[in-house]
Amino acid sequence: MFNEFGKFIKLTTFGESHGPALGGVIDGFPAGLSVNFDEIQKELDRRKPGQSKIVTQRKEDDKVEFLSGIFEGKTTGQAIGFVIKNTNQKSNDYDHNTGIFRPSHADFTYFQKYGIRDHRGGGRTSARETANWIVAGALAKQLLSSISIHAFVSSVGEITLKKNIHELDLSQTESNIIRCPDWETAEQMIQKIAEIKKDGDTIGGVITCMIKNVPRGLGEPIFDKLSARLAQGMMSINAAKGFEIGSGFAGTRLKGSEHNDIFTQGGKTLTNNSGGIQGGISNGMDIVFKVAFKPVATIMKEQQTIDENGNVCSIKGKGRHDPCVVPRAVPIVEAIAAFILADFWLMNKVRKI
Amino acid sequence: MFNEFGKFIKLTTFGESHGPALGGVIDGFPAGLSVNFDEIQKELDRRKPGQSKIVTQRKEDDKVEFLSGIFEGKTTGQAIGFVIKNTNQKSNDYDHNTGIFRPSHADFTYFQKYGIRDHRGGGRTSARETANWIVAGALAKQLLSSISIHAFVSSVGEITLKKNIHELDLSQTESNIIRCPDWETAEQMIQKIAEIKKDGDTIGGVITCMIKNVPRGLGEPIFDKLSARLAQGMMSINAAKGFEIGSGFAGTRLKGSEHNDIFTQGGKTLTNNSGGIQGGISNGMDIVFKVAFKPVATIMKEQQTIDENGNVCSIKGKGRHDPCVVPRAVPIVEAIAAFILADFWLMNKVRKI
Amino acid sequence: MFNEFGKFIKLTTFGESHGPALGGVIDGFPAGLSVNFDEIQKELDRRKPGQSKIVTQRKEDDKVEFLSGIFEGKTTGQAIGFVIKNTNQKSNDYDHNTGIFRPSHADFTYFQKYGIRDHRGGGRTSARETANWIVAGALAKQLLSSISIHAFVSSVGEITLKKNIHELDLSQTESNIIRCPDWETAEQMIQKIAEIKKDGDTIGGVITCMIKNVPRGLGEPIFDKLSARLAQGMMSINAAKGFEIGSGFAGTRLKGSEHNDIFTQGGKTLTNNSGGIQGGISNGMDIVFKVAFKPVATIMKEQQTIDENGNVCSIKGKGRHDPCVVPRAVPIVEAIAAFILADFWLMNKVRKI
Amino acid sequence: MFNEFGKFIKLTTFGESHGPALGGVIDGFPAGLSVNFDEIQKELDRRKPGQSKIVTQRKEDDKVEFLSGIFEGKTTGQAIGFVIKNTNQKSNDYDHNTGIFRPSHADFTYFQKYGIRDHRGGGRTSARETANWIVAGALAKQLLSSISIHAFVSSVGEITLKKNIHELDLSQTESNIIRCPDWETAEQMIQKIAEIKKDGDTIGGVITCMIKNVPRGLGEPIFDKLSARLAQGMMSINAAKGFEIGSGFAGTRLKGSEHNDIFTQGGKTLTNNSGGIQGGISNGMDIVFKVAFKPVATIMKEQQTIDENGNVCSIKGKGRHDPCVVPRAVPIVEAIAAFILADFWLMNKVRKI
Repeated sequence: MFNEFGKFIKLTTFGESHGPALGGVIDGFPAGLSVNFDEIQKELDRRKPGQSKIVTQRKEDDKVEFLSGIFEGKTTGQAIGFVIKNTNQKSNDYDHNTGIFRPSHADFTYFQKYGIRDHRGGGRTSARETANWIVAGALAKQLLSSISIHAFVSSVGEITLKKNIHELDLSQTESNIIRCPDWETAEQMIQKIAEIKKDGDTIGGVITCMIKNVPRGLGEPIFDKLSARLAQGMMSINAAKGFEIGSGFAGTRLKGSEHNDIFTQGGKTLTNNSGGIQGGISNGMDIVFKVAFKPVATIMKEQQTIDENGNVCSIKGKGRHDPCVVPRAVPIVEAIAAFILADFWLMNKVRKI
Repeated sequence: MFNEFGKFIKLTTFGESHGPALGGVIDGFPAGLSVNFDEIQKELDRRKPGQSKIVTQRKEDDKVEFLSGIFEGKTTGQAIGFVIKNTNQKSNDYDHNTGIFRPSHADFTYFQKYGIRDHRGGGRTSARETANWIVAGALAKQLLSSISIHAFVSSVGEITLKKNIHELDLSQTESNIIRCPDWETAEQMIQKIAEIKKDGDTIGGVITCMIKNVPRGLGEPIFDKLSARLAQGMMSINAAKGFEIGSGFAGTRLKGSEHNDIFTQGGKTLTNNSGGIQGGISNGMDIVFKVAFKPVATIMKEQQTIDENGNVCSIKGKGRHDPCVVPRAVPIVEAIAAFILADFWLMNKVRKI
Repeated sequence: MFNEFGKFIKLTTFGESHGPALGGVIDGFPAGLSVNFDEIQKELDRRKPGQSKIVTQRKEDDKVEFLSGIFEGKTTGQAIGFVIKNTNQKSNDYDHNTGIFRPSHADFTYFQKYGIRDHRGGGRTSARETANWIVAGALAKQLLSSISIHAFVSSVGEITLKKNIHELDLSQTESNIIRCPDWETAEQMIQKIAEIKKDGDTIGGVITCMIKNVPRGLGEPIFDKLSARLAQGMMSINAAKGFEIGSGFAGTRLKGSEHNDIFTQGGKTLTNNSGGIQGGISNGMDIVFKVAFKPVATIMKEQQTIDENGNVCSIKGKGRHDPCVVPRAVPIVEAIAAFILADFWLMNKVRKI
Repeated sequence: MFNEFGKFIKLTTFGESHGPALGGVIDGFPAGLSVNFDEIQKELDRRKPGQSKIVTQRKEDDKVEFLSGIFEGKTTGQAIGFVIKNTNQKSNDYDHNTGIFRPSHADFTYFQKYGIRDHRGGGRTSARETANWIVAGALAKQLLSSISIHAFVSSVGEITLKKNIHELDLSQTESNIIRCPDWETAEQMIQKIAEIKKDGDTIGGVITCMIKNVPRGLGEPIFDKLSARLAQGMMSINAAKGFEIGSGFAGTRLKGSEHNDIFTQGGKTLTNNSGGIQGGISNGMDIVFKVAFKPVATIMKEQQTIDENGNVCSIKGKGRHDPCVVPRAVPIVEAIAAFILADFWLMNKVRKI
């Protein structure tokens, strides 16, 4: 209902950062796919903490255990249940938070909503939840083997990748720890994060995602436009503050005669201001979108805040946190995009008789 | 499923721009609300074509007729069915389009998806559909009488409202035809659209929306975050290309120590970079978001395009179209926001025992 | 949500017996079906009041008007909106009911639930709603043109069709006004209803439904078993009190060695105690089920009841009511069955890669 | 989607009888309930195999492990994830089934649908799945602490409980292994099952369920009538073949003047042919319904069947199976009823303003 995503394939998730395990159920996944488990683990490893010096030093193996829906290496069409055990939940890193709300965290709103305070840490609001999405997304990628999804970091703070997306060698994204395909910019970004981290602070950034070989016809009127569902999915990621498809906000400054994507023989377009989606439905051009991420709220600096009685006090972060979410968010963006495309790909199979 | 929106209150819509009528069903609306029909019509009038010189000169009365779910002026708790008749569908304005795809329109993608070409015009993809949303949103506004929703135009092309949102007198939004609360900027925007229109071209723009008096606790983990649902809803509007909540893309350039919203006594915050939503749930501060709209695709200029056989040809718009969507999109943004808030407001009634 | 049915094709309905119109939206119906409108009207005529001496003498034309989703005679894949106008709502037949609850009607429970009393008549609880289902079912029948659905009356009160289902000539069902394919039994049933009606009373009955040429594989684990969804659909019909698939309650008295359906070469079975469904999924044999209908609650006899203050008073039916629902319920049972099968037929298209 | 049940509270399940574990996610469960874990285990123990001489001798502990959504003994409002490990999956009991379809099982239909054969046993179609439902139902019972749900065995083969439901002491149900509250009938039933088992055969039966203290107003028009949802839920249980509410099939033989439930002062009724539900909504009287279960398909006798190539062969059951499902199905019926009522109870909180 709320912990679920998708229509023809549906992911329902559970789990808190400091409970025994995360996990989920993938319902509606077609039978007959030979699952590449290594690829799934590889995606989890791209997201996991502790993988480089610019991400949280917390160590979690993030091993997924499939409990159903796969038999002798193949999907059976039955519900795919899985768990990812929490092996390194140091609740005591969080004990000092008891009764105090962390600024710009979800502590306060969850307490207001549910009347319950899980003082062990982020609980359900932890980005640890996104490991579940990676599992679902990795399976979706295997279902859509002809489509290729390339997310990468396009800005960290003020440092912005200047090159045009078509000049980039996207195969280079994984070659550096910030996941920016341009080495020079990557170096600057890594340097920036290192400084920020040293200062006990955090910084925001932007991820761009390009999807190639998308079949025409994915997306559904009226409220399940491909762009609308991508927006919902991306804005579900922790710390996401903005979403743009194609020309995005910059496109608002153009005239129609500048912005329209002129068709050429066969149905391709000269430009791609549409970002591969027209009227909410893929047109076969590359899908291109951006997601904005705010700086991580937990900083190693003293801040004013309030306690559960509404009284002012102060707080200073402890423990192991990311100075910038974008490098680890790259595989998350891809996973959600893959899951959404797989969902629409199935839908599109029943749109014509 | 696809022509529906909402969870506890659900709007399901139908209708094409050139068919006999639009309409929809609102399911799950609580019993006992005394409906103010004038207010609903007033909202429809804000969206209707022909209301000023800077919007399409097409004339439609956009009268809603309720067929069920309201008895003696009160909602009964039963499905609310309604229709809005099309009284001015000049299909012949569109005859010249037969077999030719309009650039950056949904013609091409719908044809690819469904194998059907409705050559009468936009059909289901027409923004006329949004009249249905206005009806649902106007009812939602009445349900949430203590919440106030203020959308306004914050940019048209390069012309941008510079004032801080808190300096604006939002009661002035409806006092001019562009729906920008700052008169000076409004004048420039209107002037700009007049020029663009004269040139047979179109221009994009941005709408900002501010929502006051939102109760704490609206929004649901994980995939129904208030921000994620607002993004989905807004990106469902025709021509929407981007969505930002709170600090948005600009927030990505800040450090955590700059971006965090410091709590003050009682749970308010000094700043509102969060845009009223933390962890996907409203925190009681004003909700602030922006929606980017591209320039309208139909222009009165010759453009290269293709026909149904994929062959290159040319097209030039005819008929009555908007040179800029933002003035008429203001009530649409409000309607969707109201509907989403009403949905979450009901959900929040069952979150604690 | 609640006024909706189906998953891949979804029907959402609205309308009250004494409002201006009924109607609905059919979402997810595939593009490309050439619609036979006469067949749809024929199904509506089978259900409409006033068609024979043993049903209510109320006159309604029950003409469906499609407002969208069909263009030049073909489904477009877009939401199909439709209305059926109420042309003969004699509210004054019901005026005497104001403030008094009719025994075994839904008046009392709706008032308890919604705090609203629609004293014009059944309102949303009227079986008039089922005209909407007929429209959706008739379209579904056309989608599933190779499947044939035969419902018929198998008992009225104590009068029961004794012949084995395979001895019946189901093409005879529509040849008599009670819709029982065995003429001798039909005569007795008609006679019985005439007597009951003369006495101002009503009587219950049973409808059996047989569906031929069902593809194997329809139905979904776990909670969308074909049998479970048929049960839900049939129990949604006004006055339905029981549902049986295959051997039903009688099967509970058998031993496994008697009840098991033995496979023969190619996958058919010798017997069909399963009623065509095993493990919730169609096995290719005929689907056979029964639906029990209680006697209509409105009788032309004085009965004790209570008013809105909970005080005892008396009531006597007036107006034009059915002495027995089963003849008019035959096309309703077929419509729901068709809609459910169409829904599962689409689902089954995405179950394997 | 398919492995899910409920609207405001939703259970999504996974798991196969011979995989590592079953489990599920309960979404939408309100925060703040103090969970009685012993009561949950007690319900699981009522369902578990090996509990008496008349059920399968397979041994499973059926211990539920909660992974999320409960903190310090209280529900948090977050998704409740749980697993039940399979500790005793003797796949070799089933090896002889490889490639052969068991008559009246789901083997054949699943293979037709998914193209996959899980030869380890029932897999997803095993009644082991119902342990998941027990967990959800036990939590629902705790949420609805004022409502009491009493299911019991009312027939085994030809042996039928003759007493009127109001003469029974329902507190006696758990005092015997067949779960019939009348000792004399219980003895006959137990004796019957013992004979059947000795003969290597199986037998069907009926479960009656009575629910007391149901608030008025539960159930939703049109397709979520309380009776319709109970029917769907009960028909989802393995081996269920029929469902009756109130007077059921017997009620079809009555006249309206006999069947109508006459109101008495305050809104109770003299009779309860409605079974506590009128117009799909609870009226405050006891809810009474029956569920028919066919004999278990696995028998220890030689039967003709076919293999995966469609060729005739023979099969004889091995392993440990139930000779009659009804004693173990009693807690399952209660669990589903509890879950459905909890769902509608939440819905009813948002039906009026």
